[in-house]
Amino acid sequence: MSDSTPIPTPSVTPPDILRCASMELQVTDLAASREFYVDVLGLVVTEEDENTVYLRSMEEFIHHNLILRQGDVAAVAAFSYRVRSPEDLDRAEAYYTALGCRVERDRSGFVKGVGDSVRVEDPLGFPYEFFHDVDHVDRLAWRYDLYTPGALVRLDHFNQVTPDVPKAEKYLEGLGFRVTEAIRDDEGTTYAAWMRRKPTVHDTAMTGGDGPRMHHIAFATHEKHNILAICDKLGALRRSDAIERGPGRHGVSNAFYLYLRDPDGHRVEIYTQDYYTGDPDNPVVVWDVHDNQRRDWWGNPVVPSWYTEASLVLDLDGNPVPLSERTDASELEETIGADGFSYTRRDETEESMPEWKKGEYKLGHQL
Amino acid sequence: MSDSTPIPTPSVTPPDILRCASMELQVTDLAASREFYVDVLGLVVTEEDENTVYLRSMEEFIHHNLILRQGDVAAVAAFSYRVRSPEDLDRAEAYYTALGCRVERDRSGFVKGVGDSVRVEDPLGFPYEFFHDVDHVDRLAWRYDLYTPGALVRLDHFNQVTPDVPKAEKYLEGLGFRVTEAIRDDEGTTYAAWMRRKPTVHDTAMTGGDGPRMHHIAFATHEKHNILAICDKLGALRRSDAIERGPGRHGVSNAFYLYLRDPDGHRVEIYTQDYYTGDPDNPVVVWDVHDNQRRDWWGNPVVPSWYTEASLVLDLDGNPVPLSERTDASELEETIGADGFSYTRRDETEESMPEWKKGEYKLGHQL
Amino acid sequence: MSDSTPIPTPSVTPPDILRCASMELQVTDLAASREFYVDVLGLVVTEEDENTVYLRSMEEFIHHNLILRQGDVAAVAAFSYRVRSPEDLDRAEAYYTALGCRVERDRSGFVKGVGDSVRVEDPLGFPYEFFHDVDHVDRLAWRYDLYTPGALVRLDHFNQVTPDVPKAEKYLEGLGFRVTEAIRDDEGTTYAAWMRRKPTVHDTAMTGGDGPRMHHIAFATHEKHNILAICDKLGALRRSDAIERGPGRHGVSNAFYLYLRDPDGHRVEIYTQDYYTGDPDNPVVVWDVHDNQRRDWWGNPVVPSWYTEASLVLDLDGNPVPLSERTDASELEETIGADGFSYTRRDETEESMPEWKKGEYKLGHQL
Amino acid sequence: MSDSTPIPTPSVTPPDILRCASMELQVTDLAASREFYVDVLGLVVTEEDENTVYLRSMEEFIHHNLILRQGDVAAVAAFSYRVRSPEDLDRAEAYYTALGCRVERDRSGFVKGVGDSVRVEDPLGFPYEFFHDVDHVDRLAWRYDLYTPGALVRLDHFNQVTPDVPKAEKYLEGLGFRVTEAIRDDEGTTYAAWMRRKPTVHDTAMTGGDGPRMHHIAFATHEKHNILAICDKLGALRRSDAIERGPGRHGVSNAFYLYLRDPDGHRVEIYTQDYYTGDPDNPVVVWDVHDNQRRDWWGNPVVPSWYTEASLVLDLDGNPVPLSERTDASELEETIGADGFSYTRRDETEESMPEWKKGEYKLGHQL
Repeated sequence: MSDSTPIPTPSVTPPDILRCASMELQVTDLAASREFYVDVLGLVVTEEDENTVYLRSMEEFIHHNLILRQGDVAAVAAFSYRVRSPEDLDRAEAYYTALGCRVERDRSGFVKGVGDSVRVEDPLGFPYEFFHDVDHVDRLAWRYDLYTPGALVRLDHFNQVTPDVPKAEKYLEGLGFRVTEAIRDDEGTTYAAWMRRKPTVHDTAMTGGDGPRMHHIAFATHEKHNILAICDKLGALRRSDAIERGPGRHGVSNAFYLYLRDPDGHRVEIYTQDYYTGDPDNPVVVWDVHDNQRRDWWGNPVVPSWYTEASLVLDLDGNPVPLSERTDASELEETIGADGFSYTRRDETEESMPEWKKGEYKLGHQL
Repeated sequence: MSDSTPIPTPSVTPPDILRCASMELQVTDLAASREFYVDVLGLVVTEEDENTVYLRSMEEFIHHNLILRQGDVAAVAAFSYRVRSPEDLDRAEAYYTALGCRVERDRSGFVKGVGDSVRVEDPLGFPYEFFHDVDHVDRLAWRYDLYTPGALVRLDHFNQVTPDVPKAEKYLEGLGFRVTEAIRDDEGTTYAAWMRRKPTVHDTAMTGGDGPRMHHIAFATHEKHNILAICDKLGALRRSDAIERGPGRHGVSNAFYLYLRDPDGHRVEIYTQDYYTGDPDNPVVVWDVHDNQRRDWWGNPVVPSWYTEASLVLDLDGNPVPLSERTDASELEETIGADGFSYTRRDETEESMPEWKKGEYKLGHQL
Repeated sequence: MSDSTPIPTPSVTPPDILRCASMELQVTDLAASREFYVDVLGLVVTEEDENTVYLRSMEEFIHHNLILRQGDVAAVAAFSYRVRSPEDLDRAEAYYTALGCRVERDRSGFVKGVGDSVRVEDPLGFPYEFFHDVDHVDRLAWRYDLYTPGALVRLDHFNQVTPDVPKAEKYLEGLGFRVTEAIRDDEGTTYAAWMRRKPTVHDTAMTGGDGPRMHHIAFATHEKHNILAICDKLGALRRSDAIERGPGRHGVSNAFYLYLRDPDGHRVEIYTQDYYTGDPDNPVVVWDVHDNQRRDWWGNPVVPSWYTEASLVLDLDGNPVPLSERTDASELEETIGADGFSYTRRDETEESMPEWKKGEYKLGHQL
Repeated sequence: MSDSTPIPTPSVTPPDILRCASMELQVTDLAASREFYVDVLGLVVTEEDENTVYLRSMEEFIHHNLILRQGDVAAVAAFSYRVRSPEDLDRAEAYYTALGCRVERDRSGFVKGVGDSVRVEDPLGFPYEFFHDVDHVDRLAWRYDLYTPGALVRLDHFNQVTPDVPKAEKYLEGLGFRVTEAIRDDEGTTYAAWMRRKPTVHDTAMTGGDGPRMHHIAFATHEKHNILAICDKLGALRRSDAIERGPGRHGVSNAFYLYLRDPDGHRVEIYTQDYYTGDPDNPVVVWDVHDNQRRDWWGNPVVPSWYTEASLVLDLDGNPVPLSERTDASELEETIGADGFSYTRRDETEESMPEWKKGEYKLGHQL
């Protein structure tokens, strides 16, 4: 069960986080994963060896945004953030030490391409990493000869599953994150919150559920047609079952999205066109959990697996972190199925619908 | 029950049909329908009176592509085709007379904007209309000051529900249509067939089911983002429940699509980018009914209402035509639900999937 | 000088032409041309040998749309049309024989992939070819794993330079073509005409100038961003000087366009989104030669080379056909430069413009 | 003539600037300007009176991004930046006072919608404004029912003309801006520099020329097709002469662009898709002034007016600021015309081109 004790905010200065920068994914079949991320999705290989592939997006100038590492279990080894200065690593070390967390520091970097790094088991159980020094590589933004129809141009965000979202919000606010959007209900339950450092809707989101788990990692494309091209290609490869949900328009974030599952089931979002959030008084958008357009602006149903499945995370010894159960209400149960409900218009009822809309019309009404 | 007697092909010359040109829709709340087609979808009003609205698409130069007419029951009054010459109306009259059908001719036109017209109750029970003379109106193709983000530029096709698809194919081939694509199974059942006069994938399609009914009318946009813009607008209007299925990429036709339901439940497809089919030896594409990418190239599930619901059609007296039941296998039952199955790759089985793909992953496996 | 004698219309039935289907281009450096059309533009190689490359577009099912053949001089060896039936070759042979043209027939085809073919030196001096039998190859429309960001999906049209456009119009009308759009002036001069068999704006256009020459061959993309992607790629390859004009929106045809020059200077248009023209009373659009939006809807200037340069054509012995001079007014001279003028609004004058628009503002006013 | 004395960097802390936020434009015909920005471009009116219109973009939540104010002369009254906190206004006041500039402060705001504000005549002669307090208004990001095909979603940047670019760079670096890209030559001349606070390519750019003048203000769209739609609409309105340059792809910034001129000749850029620059070690991209792809990645020519024309700016009394001449080399003269040159490939010469590329081919070679 989830520990509801609030996480204290240390009095020491937190590190100045620039942005989500990379994820280290443990995969069970490196060749299959490489094929998915490189041959299908078109990420660029910066460097690789027998056990590891370092990948980046087209507009990136740092060494990598994604590391695939061969392992026995599909899991996330690190959520990695870049900080503003070398001194921010000292701050990270002090901050998490003050939080009572396990902290490891490797001045030559835990992985290739980065220097001095701090890894922690954070208060929510996630393996967070911080680094500043990094090898610069070619920013391929202008290399249109290398673009594919579905080119991924930036790492956009992480999404984490944790039992107690308000607790997670408070912890990240202590680290300097700000909430941009959230899903709540009238009873005061928070189902998910989106939090940012860079001025987009998020660098990470906290999604309510048994955790710690990794819900997804998201890469950005330039335009919506790039996302459609990825779907078309998966169809042509007879791998359309890699498409879990979408494409669609999010309510939250206003972005256009697609969710894929990689060969291990790790979820990858392809994402484009959210909005600028960099002002300190940027309006927070709160969505009602029963609003059927909150997660898909077009009211298309969210598949149950999207709510229930997520990736394990590893502790600093490389062992999967055991899960704590969510005790708050479940978004899945609140909104779909026999006891849940969602509305398109706030005051509508089943009775107010025309006859032909009742019954089996629209999966959103029946799942 | 459906009458399986084949329809004889008359020995007289059929009319030379140019293209599907217009549909006359009976609607039960004209103001609501006008608001949907004009204010939401952006069709252009050519002319209107208290009971009738004549609409056209942005690139059209004939008087209308859609007529909305107030009536007591939601139904289709005419599927209207344009023929090459005035003489083709004599041919239409003779052809359907030879078929033993009820035929009406009005030399001043049954509706505004067109002249000499022939209406028939065709052998499948559908109200077909043929005309040549028509009022020309401004082709608004260059009027970008009038375009909306989701502008509808052409009427693309009709789609009809009929119990016996091979019978319908043979009838339309007699009329000069050619099959471009079809869904069949290894046992010889045909589930649907796409048939064209103009060199696109279809002017009409025949979908197996209780009939005669109108499955949908389809308008084309220039690009895919126009279709996404329609979805976004429906979300903004809190009318996302008008979206029944999609957007997505069709397997059949290779077009990008969206299905909407108008205020009466009449289904409207928004469609873009199929391919040229005008050569006489244009290869016919046959899809296996169990191929999960046939109706959505991305493997996204077809909602049951899309299979089961359709609009009534009217006879020439304005009365709804009673339905005949389909006796062949149902595509819905063959492909989804407890007894149906669909595959992404022809030889795959549930057992060959990774653990995380079993169970409730992907609605396509469970509905 | 151009021969102004009208071309008589033979009394025999012309062949039933389906569409422009292929061009045979003689190139002086086959490797360079192959690299341009295959590696840069992404056309698909159906077959090749030491001296010849057969190429097709993504949605094509016939053997080729473009033949590159090594030769001593850059020129066009054939404008090739597909006809409806084998018997139409007899008609083509009889038709051009009646016209007094040189006619050659090769029942095994002049090139690979096609059967019985007729080649003529037409009354305007162009090498026209007609064929029906053709090898079918895979239509790659659904092979999104092979699409590039700028994928060419169809051959759309040819464009020919000839001194006397009305004479050419009449000749093509005899062959069954119809005019869809034209550029004329108030004095009765015709500068260009667009003519179609398939129901698009054209299968070929006639452009006034010294001829016979080939102005360009045009391939279609699905959407406008595909055309922009070609420009971006050329920039990345440091081959932006292959871009001669555009991208832009045509006034004539309403299509989005780009003009490239291949390594021999042969002009290739990339084109998307004109409109349906298949009705017999399709309204003809006539543009005033002084309308500055006729060739670019956005008023961007047409570069002089676009008017003056074009490719030689070969006679049936493979020798370049000598040019006849245009004697009618030149569109270039009428519209730009010291003595020409173009307007954005029909009645505007230089004097009516604000001060800052005079002088060197907008190249369209000064070239 | 330009004063080459360096601008000292004050020892006091500069204000923490969030982003370029608004421009106040003086216009000579308010109705005409309103029609251009509202009816043609679709900016949203937040508030207006007889002499002033306050406009914002679709994703904005502050009161305005553009103010149109009736006046006698076309000029810019303020380049307005938002700062992080109210205290940053004290810092702004102190900073410019230390610089010896004229400084005005209005605690109730110089314009509607904002509170406490500082206006200065900066060391380069520009009217800069800083504010923090601002009225929040509806962020219309989700209001797709209000989007036009060319919807402007954000204010992206300013562009200023100043004689001495390195001097301007140093001044803005003192204010906390960072250079992201620049155009220089091998002799050490700087022709332009792009500088940012928010993590895009710029909040403002400094372009070498007689100054102080305003080169342009830029708004962002979501996608490239939105920019094309603006061109199409201007064509339909017979206002294509409002298009000065583009659309095209920039080399600098990698963004897709279009330059318009408003009824007073004020230049407006429409811009989309540059890249993230927020890391402190973000690689600076330096372009050679002779690189023909630096300002248009496709090598399309820059029209002379784009180099030579720009808007006056006003001092704090509302009088036009006299211009100082640029004494460094002119980009226009270095790159086009009789004495300038540009290359597509660094080592190419006129002689190395094929015959057909010489002479009048490509305006870039001849203007």
